[in-house]
Amino acid sequence: MSEFDLINQYFKSAPVKRNDVVLGIGDDCALLSPPAGKQLAVSTDTLISGVHFPENTHPADIAYKALAVNLSDLAAMGAEPAWVSLAISLPEPEHQWLEQFMQGFNQLAQQYNIALVGGDTTRGPLSITVNVSGFVEASAALKRSAAKPGDQIFVSGTPGDARAGLEILLSKKNAAGKTLHTKDLDYLLGRLNRPSPRVSTGQLLAALSAKFGEHNAIAAIDLSDGLLADLAHICKASGVGAALQLESLPLSTALKNYSAKQPDWQKILNAGDDYELCFTCAQSHVDELLQSVSATDVLITRIGEINQENTIDCYYKDQLCEDIKPAGYNHFNIK
Amino acid sequence: MSEFDLINQYFKSAPVKRNDVVLGIGDDCALLSPPAGKQLAVSTDTLISGVHFPENTHPADIAYKALAVNLSDLAAMGAEPAWVSLAISLPEPEHQWLEQFMQGFNQLAQQYNIALVGGDTTRGPLSITVNVSGFVEASAALKRSAAKPGDQIFVSGTPGDARAGLEILLSKKNAAGKTLHTKDLDYLLGRLNRPSPRVSTGQLLAALSAKFGEHNAIAAIDLSDGLLADLAHICKASGVGAALQLESLPLSTALKNYSAKQPDWQKILNAGDDYELCFTCAQSHVDELLQSVSATDVLITRIGEINQENTIDCYYKDQLCEDIKPAGYNHFNIK
Repeated sequence: MSEFDLINQYFKSAPVKRNDVVLGIGDDCALLSPPAGKQLAVSTDTLISGVHFPENTHPADIAYKALAVNLSDLAAMGAEPAWVSLAISLPEPEHQWLEQFMQGFNQLAQQYNIALVGGDTTRGPLSITVNVSGFVEASAALKRSAAKPGDQIFVSGTPGDARAGLEILLSKKNAAGKTLHTKDLDYLLGRLNRPSPRVSTGQLLAALSAKFGEHNAIAAIDLSDGLLADLAHICKASGVGAALQLESLPLSTALKNYSAKQPDWQKILNAGDDYELCFTCAQSHVDELLQSVSATDVLITRIGEINQENTIDCYYKDQLCEDIKPAGYNHFNIK
Repeated sequence: MSEFDLINQYFKSAPVKRNDVVLGIGDDCALLSPPAGKQLAVSTDTLISGVHFPENTHPADIAYKALAVNLSDLAAMGAEPAWVSLAISLPEPEHQWLEQFMQGFNQLAQQYNIALVGGDTTRGPLSITVNVSGFVEASAALKRSAAKPGDQIFVSGTPGDARAGLEILLSKKNAAGKTLHTKDLDYLLGRLNRPSPRVSTGQLLAALSAKFGEHNAIAAIDLSDGLLADLAHICKASGVGAALQLESLPLSTALKNYSAKQPDWQKILNAGDDYELCFTCAQSHVDELLQSVSATDVLITRIGEINQENTIDCYYKDQLCEDIKPAGYNHFNIK
């Protein structure tokens, strides 16, 4: 099977068609027609077998996650997904593998109406590089640098689930060594393998940010490296600090069942792979923001406040937890 | 060294700055402002160590080539380079390697004023995935599907040099086993390691194609898999055939010196990695085309004619060479 057969068979047949794709896969370049007056938001992320996903991960889950983590970057800017390029390196071209891979990819691509406009397949160790583009109004993009002292800090969903999923995958036990219920097991593994990019939430926040009128009213980032490490990126870019109330942190029932006694905050706050949004908003706009997000099915929780310090301090019921520091997830520090 | 330090140190300091890059590396996405009324041409290509370049290739050459082969795709559409994303997977982050890599990358990026707008570094087997975007007028893009019977076929530069470079790299001898002159050696290795993306030629052809007024007057492709295989892509996309006159094929002095007796046409016509342009133009516009390209320093040579057949036939001084067929370069057929 030649590379070209692969491309024709699996990439050209991707189901999402868009009017702004003037020429799709099959020429030297795709030709795209960006909407007048909007900015393009672009991001690229690579997932490598054994680093970003366990080697025995199902091909459909690999593809789903590779696209999801890139869509999550669009979500964190408040952009509307439009186009995606996909570079796959794999040891051997196998029909079944590619079929399953594209099934997972197309499932998520259809959900967000994102068209596959470029592809490259090469022989090599298994890795996936995805490049996504989306549209955002110039005044609406959610930048990391927009946080101001007094802003309230929010998080979507329930952080820490994906890391618990990874631990379970390796042990099939909970933190106390007990076997988990199937429902909790499936939920936590699902958060690891099929994260939910918060695209709609990001677009809603961008619309609110533009409506609030101040330039860059809302700062946002997606949680790929852990809540503390990612919030630290916002703080660094904005020249601010933060105080978190750990008792406010939303935890899933499955994570509570997984945790032996009480939550391991250090682990949860430094857990990668959640792909939730962390964002800030001025106190004066919080009521309107909460009203808007309450109409969606995404859990949004206030977890702290931006301040003028140059640290992130964690409090549990007003008690400073001095031992909780950002560790983050570093691809070059893990085996 | 963390991934973020790497990104900050090497990616953020990339020298090309453009006004249409509203927000560069350092947030969840870059924010870009495409020019009104133009189309975006986008392409992605992966280079893997041991597959697309020998493992001992200098980091500056790896980077140069990774960007060059992607710029070559923009050239083949006639697009003006604008933005590039870079995903690097490498076994260990080494300052010297990254410094040399970015030196090669920046050298070519500066030449074509293409801004680095996205980056990802991951631990893994050495591979580079580049995603480029450029601008092209809607009516000017050079499509593979535009060739018509009677069109003349042209090639830029001197195909076959890169493959000779690769053979030399492995043997340091010429095809007859004799040691090559340093000048020829350097030239052929240079064609392998640092191909010249024909960006200016592509833009000139796009402008001519728009000027000639017919929709899609010029078809083009870049030579990555070998002249026969790539011309076959034009023929397939256009529903036409081609006849080539081998005696017209331009060969470099170095390649002639490298070739033992007479040129090995089968090898030259199926040699990958040249990144020259192959294009077609209606006979009625050939004089104007040749006049325009003669003002540039890129060699353009007429090598054949499009016909109504469904084959590509090669003639040497009017004699059909029945044994010369496209083999092409297939990443899944080589070790």
